[in-house]
Amino acid sequence: MIPITEYIQQLGRNARMATRELVKAPTKLKNLALQLIAEQLTSARAYIKQQNLLDLKQSKAHGLSDAMLDRLTLTDARIDLMITGIKQIITLADPVGEIRDLKYVPSGLQIGKMRSPIGVIGIIYESRPNVTIDAAALCLKSANAVILRGGSEAIHSNRAIADCIQQGLQQAGLPTNAVQLVNTIDRQAVDLLVSMPEYVNVIIPRGGKSLIQRVNATAKVPVIMHLDGNCHVYVDAMADLTKAATIAINAKCYRYGICGAMETLLIHKSIASELLPIISPLFAAKGVELRGCEQTRKYLPDLIPATEEDWYTEYMAAILAIKIVADLEQAINHINKYGSHHTDSIVTEHVGAVHRFLAEVDSSSVMHNAPTCFADGFEYGLGAEIGISTNKLHVRGPVGLEGLTTEKYIVLGDGFTTRG
Amino acid sequence: MIPITEYIQQLGRNARMATRELVKAPTKLKNLALQLIAEQLTSARAYIKQQNLLDLKQSKAHGLSDAMLDRLTLTDARIDLMITGIKQIITLADPVGEIRDLKYVPSGLQIGKMRSPIGVIGIIYESRPNVTIDAAALCLKSANAVILRGGSEAIHSNRAIADCIQQGLQQAGLPTNAVQLVNTIDRQAVDLLVSMPEYVNVIIPRGGKSLIQRVNATAKVPVIMHLDGNCHVYVDAMADLTKAATIAINAKCYRYGICGAMETLLIHKSIASELLPIISPLFAAKGVELRGCEQTRKYLPDLIPATEEDWYTEYMAAILAIKIVADLEQAINHINKYGSHHTDSIVTEHVGAVHRFLAEVDSSSVMHNAPTCFADGFEYGLGAEIGISTNKLHVRGPVGLEGLTTEKYIVLGDGFTTRG
Repeated sequence: MIPITEYIQQLGRNARMATRELVKAPTKLKNLALQLIAEQLTSARAYIKQQNLLDLKQSKAHGLSDAMLDRLTLTDARIDLMITGIKQIITLADPVGEIRDLKYVPSGLQIGKMRSPIGVIGIIYESRPNVTIDAAALCLKSANAVILRGGSEAIHSNRAIADCIQQGLQQAGLPTNAVQLVNTIDRQAVDLLVSMPEYVNVIIPRGGKSLIQRVNATAKVPVIMHLDGNCHVYVDAMADLTKAATIAINAKCYRYGICGAMETLLIHKSIASELLPIISPLFAAKGVELRGCEQTRKYLPDLIPATEEDWYTEYMAAILAIKIVADLEQAINHINKYGSHHTDSIVTEHVGAVHRFLAEVDSSSVMHNAPTCFADGFEYGLGAEIGISTNKLHVRGPVGLEGLTTEKYIVLGDGFTTRG
Repeated sequence: MIPITEYIQQLGRNARMATRELVKAPTKLKNLALQLIAEQLTSARAYIKQQNLLDLKQSKAHGLSDAMLDRLTLTDARIDLMITGIKQIITLADPVGEIRDLKYVPSGLQIGKMRSPIGVIGIIYESRPNVTIDAAALCLKSANAVILRGGSEAIHSNRAIADCIQQGLQQAGLPTNAVQLVNTIDRQAVDLLVSMPEYVNVIIPRGGKSLIQRVNATAKVPVIMHLDGNCHVYVDAMADLTKAATIAINAKCYRYGICGAMETLLIHKSIASELLPIISPLFAAKGVELRGCEQTRKYLPDLIPATEEDWYTEYMAAILAIKIVADLEQAINHINKYGSHHTDSIVTEHVGAVHRFLAEVDSSSVMHNAPTCFADGFEYGLGAEIGISTNKLHVRGPVGLEGLTTEKYIVLGDGFTTRG
């Protein structure tokens, strides 16, 4: 066996070489490869499930939690979803080569921007084997080479899926090194993968907070990452209270564990006495524990008092903090101070309030009269997402094909335009 | 005096606070502030020159090179250029709030992207005091708060200019903390400034390689940086040789010291025997030393042999390396391997070669029938630039107003759209 340092560097070199072929591949060829990968998945279905059973057995023996085991499980329905996901990516427009803002400048040159692949992307993830397919398909369509590092608990499933990808690439005549799986459970692989700026252009970690913090602390290349999802809904003085109730319930209760779930509800003081009696029984019926600020507790004295800590907390559970604010300004300041710059929504019929909220709330998604739980690549029409970025630079919010590309300037002349 | 750690943190807190006001400022108000700053510069002209003389005296005493002294000198003409620069930024469209791709998705929501400021930008630069104005004006127009760290050799000049900025901001009713100058020559300030992710969103170093490497090694926030400018012109088999000669001479000789200057000329083997006798005397007349590959020296035996080292070198001098290549493929591979991904140009009349070159050369600017020395924000119509980024993520090439902004998703609903 070759030493791990050498192995990971080899993956990097392979990926870098593959980028030269990928950047030349026309849309049709990339789509053909995706189609062939989907077909491979279909015919390898039984083998994939058998390999997945191996992972599940080992993971049960290692005492993995039921939630983790559920994520790891590949059912027929989940394999179907992977195939549907690939087919959807085939239908998406190819972002590579897209040219915008091409115009003449005073020198006589024509200048614009062309979208191009980033190069080599490293993706580090846990448990869910479907990420192997989603990530490979998005990177392939955007002409990036990708190095995939899945969790050790899913290694058999990931190997089986990666085999399908390799075969699809080979049949299409694309380099099989366009998609490489780190084929070792040695945890050192992660530290090595994030420390090769000569081969890897960007790292995307997908998983728990500890993984992301570890990657971020070690990385010597840019990291597109997702931290917390402490999302807010603010019900303004001019809100339609029926809409407010619909949005608040959906934002909290669609799913407690997603990053777009509402964690704090902010209510303008002038409508609190009307709104609280409407929503309080609705949340009670859903089994949501409410924690209130002092003012909220004047209307609902039974609530648990919310502390300073609550405003910072992403519960990811059937718990909601409620705070009454004096005005829009205070709502925006609260969100920018305590929030995680993920997704925040205003409920109002007042157009001026909408404009201020959208402009001044510093989050990757800002919404009007919509529940925060919609923060998701599929819902946004990206086709698929490789994660949701809470970075401020390069890409914010759900990361789809466009987020996996960059732009370069193109400058077109007549040969006789000289600077001087 | 307060300890330096506390001082820099205070600047960070101030800047963060100022962003709240800046994001609300309408275009008109930002333009008014810019106009008032220009007026302050006009009336403080004598004082600025007097303070600049102090810097020049000290720097001469410290034995600064003539080139550095020249960069540091503020003449009337240079102060005029600073004022013209501000006026040009006033005329540029405000990128903040720009909305694109707003469309309905199947859920009924309307989803698009809105351009917004990055937040707080730290700029670290050397000698040229005009950066103080250029950077402040670009950041102000894009609604970012900025912390400026100029070189110790320019501290008096920078203070005088910063005073003008402060007064302009105050007169316009904008927070003076929108633009802060680090008012100490303690070098520790740089390390502190780049290590405050809680206050500073991005760092832009402008200066020599050692400064940029130091910042990059220390930074705990993203860095928009410019490394080398090892630029190429490739003269294709189907090139118009008159155009090729015009472009090659201009690309090399417009100015030897700029990052867009050509450092290596690549020539297709089929036209080398024709082109070399045309350009060789032209370069000789300009006093440019030519270094050739083995094949080039078959046509021009007097040339110094170019070594492997030459292909990697950014001369920034009257020296040019010449290499004969077998085809377009080899030219592209040479540029991607030895180049610095800055600016590279193809000379050809063949449209297929143009398409391949633009798509496959992995550089921040790719050009056709144009000299590489045009790589510049003013020439690209950005109005002004804060530097040229050789990063792959977020912004590549000249960085103007758009590069100082980010995009967030906006999601607009009717209040009754729920996910489920």
